[in-house]
Amino acid sequence: MTAQFVTGLPSTIGDSYQLNTSTIIRHAARTYPEQEIIFRTPTGGWESYTYGEAYARAQRIANALGGLGVAPGDVVGILDWNSKRHFELYWAIPGTAAVMLQMNLRLAPQDLGYVVAHSGASVILVDETLIPVAEALAAQSTGVREWVIMSDRPMSEISTSLPGARHFEDLVAAADPEFAWPVIDERSAYSACYTTGTTGRPKGVFYSHRSIYLHTMTTAAALGMGPDDTVMPVTPMFHCQSWGFPQAAVLSAARLVLPGRYQAEDLPALVDKLIEEGVTVANGAPAIFQPMLGYMKTLTAPPDLSGARLISGSTEPALSLMREFAETTGAEVIHAYGATETSPFVSVNMGMKPAMRGTLSEEEQWDLKRRQGLPIVGVDIRVVDAEGNDVPRDGKTVGEVLLRGPWIADRYHDQDDDSEHFFDGYWRSGDVGSLDEHGYLKLTDRLKDVIKSGGEWISSIDMENAIVGMDRVADAAVISVPHPKWEERPLALVVTTDGEPISVAEVHAALAGAFAKWQLPDLVIHVSQLPRTGVGKLDKKVLRNEHEGAYAQAE
Amino acid sequence: MTAQFVTGLPSTIGDSYQLNTSTIIRHAARTYPEQEIIFRTPTGGWESYTYGEAYARAQRIANALGGLGVAPGDVVGILDWNSKRHFELYWAIPGTAAVMLQMNLRLAPQDLGYVVAHSGASVILVDETLIPVAEALAAQSTGVREWVIMSDRPMSEISTSLPGARHFEDLVAAADPEFAWPVIDERSAYSACYTTGTTGRPKGVFYSHRSIYLHTMTTAAALGMGPDDTVMPVTPMFHCQSWGFPQAAVLSAARLVLPGRYQAEDLPALVDKLIEEGVTVANGAPAIFQPMLGYMKTLTAPPDLSGARLISGSTEPALSLMREFAETTGAEVIHAYGATETSPFVSVNMGMKPAMRGTLSEEEQWDLKRRQGLPIVGVDIRVVDAEGNDVPRDGKTVGEVLLRGPWIADRYHDQDDDSEHFFDGYWRSGDVGSLDEHGYLKLTDRLKDVIKSGGEWISSIDMENAIVGMDRVADAAVISVPHPKWEERPLALVVTTDGEPISVAEVHAALAGAFAKWQLPDLVIHVSQLPRTGVGKLDKKVLRNEHEGAYAQAE
Repeated sequence: MTAQFVTGLPSTIGDSYQLNTSTIIRHAARTYPEQEIIFRTPTGGWESYTYGEAYARAQRIANALGGLGVAPGDVVGILDWNSKRHFELYWAIPGTAAVMLQMNLRLAPQDLGYVVAHSGASVILVDETLIPVAEALAAQSTGVREWVIMSDRPMSEISTSLPGARHFEDLVAAADPEFAWPVIDERSAYSACYTTGTTGRPKGVFYSHRSIYLHTMTTAAALGMGPDDTVMPVTPMFHCQSWGFPQAAVLSAARLVLPGRYQAEDLPALVDKLIEEGVTVANGAPAIFQPMLGYMKTLTAPPDLSGARLISGSTEPALSLMREFAETTGAEVIHAYGATETSPFVSVNMGMKPAMRGTLSEEEQWDLKRRQGLPIVGVDIRVVDAEGNDVPRDGKTVGEVLLRGPWIADRYHDQDDDSEHFFDGYWRSGDVGSLDEHGYLKLTDRLKDVIKSGGEWISSIDMENAIVGMDRVADAAVISVPHPKWEERPLALVVTTDGEPISVAEVHAALAGAFAKWQLPDLVIHVSQLPRTGVGKLDKKVLRNEHEGAYAQAE
Repeated sequence: MTAQFVTGLPSTIGDSYQLNTSTIIRHAARTYPEQEIIFRTPTGGWESYTYGEAYARAQRIANALGGLGVAPGDVVGILDWNSKRHFELYWAIPGTAAVMLQMNLRLAPQDLGYVVAHSGASVILVDETLIPVAEALAAQSTGVREWVIMSDRPMSEISTSLPGARHFEDLVAAADPEFAWPVIDERSAYSACYTTGTTGRPKGVFYSHRSIYLHTMTTAAALGMGPDDTVMPVTPMFHCQSWGFPQAAVLSAARLVLPGRYQAEDLPALVDKLIEEGVTVANGAPAIFQPMLGYMKTLTAPPDLSGARLISGSTEPALSLMREFAETTGAEVIHAYGATETSPFVSVNMGMKPAMRGTLSEEEQWDLKRRQGLPIVGVDIRVVDAEGNDVPRDGKTVGEVLLRGPWIADRYHDQDDDSEHFFDGYWRSGDVGSLDEHGYLKLTDRLKDVIKSGGEWISSIDMENAIVGMDRVADAAVISVPHPKWEERPLALVVTTDGEPISVAEVHAALAGAFAKWQLPDLVIHVSQLPRTGVGKLDKKVLRNEHEGAYAQAE
């Protein structure tokens, strides 16, 4: 279904105009030079400066990079928290046509070393607090010719084994104050981010100036950011550029609060500041928002965050989290969907469309808000079956989620064969879900957790949830088991509250309303407990290995 | 000061992705199929349909155009008001890679005929009410091979001398319901609009899919449009595509009210509907908003339009218009600046920036709101002196306004020599103004009304306003007169309330506070009245001719 490509009459506009990110910071510095950026220092204090001052710093840093010999197309890595310098580097590195490598400091050293080598990084800038992380990479990172330490303290007070380490602020102080931003071919790389590599080696996504510009404009509009907002990017700036929040804040001329280091012990300082500065837009995930709420509940009086939007990625937020945030603080938890390969915004759930108001019960409204939401303009979402055909948009039929758009990867960086990840011009997300007639996306599974039976798909997660909902059931897992006739069939493993087995008939009776007969598990195995991973997820790999022969003899 | 062009490392995103306007309507139809479009019919009634239905119509129309032999790059003209069909054609014509020619039905027939011939239009679609306009063009428009009448009535009831005229709805009814939008090279022309040609022949600007897409995203965000808005494009859809309002409304999934024909007698119906539908965003100009306000004041109770944004282009709105709208209805008149060559949005005045609140008196706030506002993201505004050097951003020093951006013309269509209109990659607006330290643009003159004296510029408009503000003055004009030493010098012509002459010394004394000594007029001539054009503007051409020798003997 590849569309025809045609060329029409030439236009008289913008033949040579390039979408460059330097336009965004230059615009902000010219038009909102007084707008404030508040940042946490490495010693835990809070300071502030302005867009105008940040822009002046970015120009000096761009010149300093030139002085280090950084040329267009060179890859410059950053090991840093959500700091002021990290923010400045967002503009300075790509502004010179070099590529900013986002280094996930939580990756295992061998994976991070792979990322550095694979991306071809030649210069790495390291926050002083992360020198140990850099030192663990140094031996294997032979392509890195410059290590630069970022610190407020002089070099004489810093101890490191990094070879030939330089001092960032010394270089910046010596650099020219004005930089003439080059016009950069808009499809040149702006930054690189690697997947976390849960299946195999990390894979590299290289965003372009164009993709970042378009992503920034669209997400700022979708989230309704403006000069009256105060934006706090909590998601790490080394992970999918904090979902583009630093750029979107600048494009919208919003106030910005950069929370610096984020580890468990930083939570109280971060939340106190969020309240003090009246943050109106923050990002994070349930794993961050849950402890945030917990801390807020320990305060003498719960904070008033009415109107604040907490953009929550990763897994869908628990109903209790969304309700409690709204009831306790007035803040709205807004679920959004994306991935490293998608820059990341694909869809955002702003709740009911105007036409739906008055048509949904309160429970239905909450149910709606837990979905992944409506696609943002520019993103095409397809949901397809195993043959690649679109499934009906009925909110029930599931399939694999395919994504296409101006900020969605169409290949990986320097991979010999990545064709399994792409289909018909779309990126294969590996997520399974459905679209309803209103356009809302709802994810149900990862593709590898889906049971493909006789050409149809069965959601193991839905079935698990339904079985866990049964009276005598304490825990349950549904896995896919190879079947000689149907390819795969579901098998249920159940832990009961009373320790007594549960019959197939009982399970079938309980599932009858929500599942078709052909979807029901052929086998229900009573177990005393289920294997879980270190982070508490069901370890289906163990279960699949253990039971892979269960249907081998079936006809 | 042309920047260096560099290419960096290739990105892994969107190598082949094209920004096409079909993405915008497809997104709306998929995600907000139920959103409402209200339209006025040719007989003056109001009806409505949905985005989903409009999209279905656009597909049929695209197929109908194919049936007429319209190919990529063909130019298809439209003679219509702000109608439902015009709206559908916004998507259908460019969606096939043909170019939509916006035909200004208020141009003189010879100018409109020139536009048709110069653009190379081969098909013209004509609303039934405008058949006489089309017939006046037909004889000179030999390149037009198809004339198509758009009407709700059957062809048998329509009388026209247009050669071989066809019936639009017959073609649409016979067309296939589904159209596969081609992927169009994003720099191909989407539509064409010609300047009104006050100085010489109309000049053609051909917008691209890319420029329209970027302009649409940016203006929708700048004006804060969303699904809860109801948008009424009052500015003609044949003039700079109603400033992109129809597209921005669709991108934002807003409700849309298309007011159909706009002539003086349509005003009451239009205003009644604006009130009834709770329009939150409308566009127009002081020449439309003034009678609109006048009509609202005749109603039994003034309407409550609190929160509504009336985007006002053309000349800056009178203070009284802005105040009275706010006080009577709660609606905010928002001044915006642009031109045919700029798609058109350059700057929008949303009032004070957050940092200015509490720093301005009420009078200063109103004064601020009358300026042309802050540039929208992507637009570079330079203000330069006669040598092309940037003047200080002090809010006082004026110069010519130069504009650059992804939706700003960098040439005219098919013009042998258009170099006088462009400078250093910027379009020369011909407007004179200043930028202040906050980034607000304030226009003072057209370049041709400025007095260039000894290398410096003097604003004739500012000086006129200051003289009109004098006690005994009823009317005044300031013109530029050639001067052997200073190139040009100001000369004032003054009408007094008591018929008694006014002295040069009196005028100098009154201007002393606001003007430098060298700027003051050397000559003040007492006249009984000033020549004005048909639309009430000072006719400076007459005055300049009459007084061109006034300083000929000066040393």
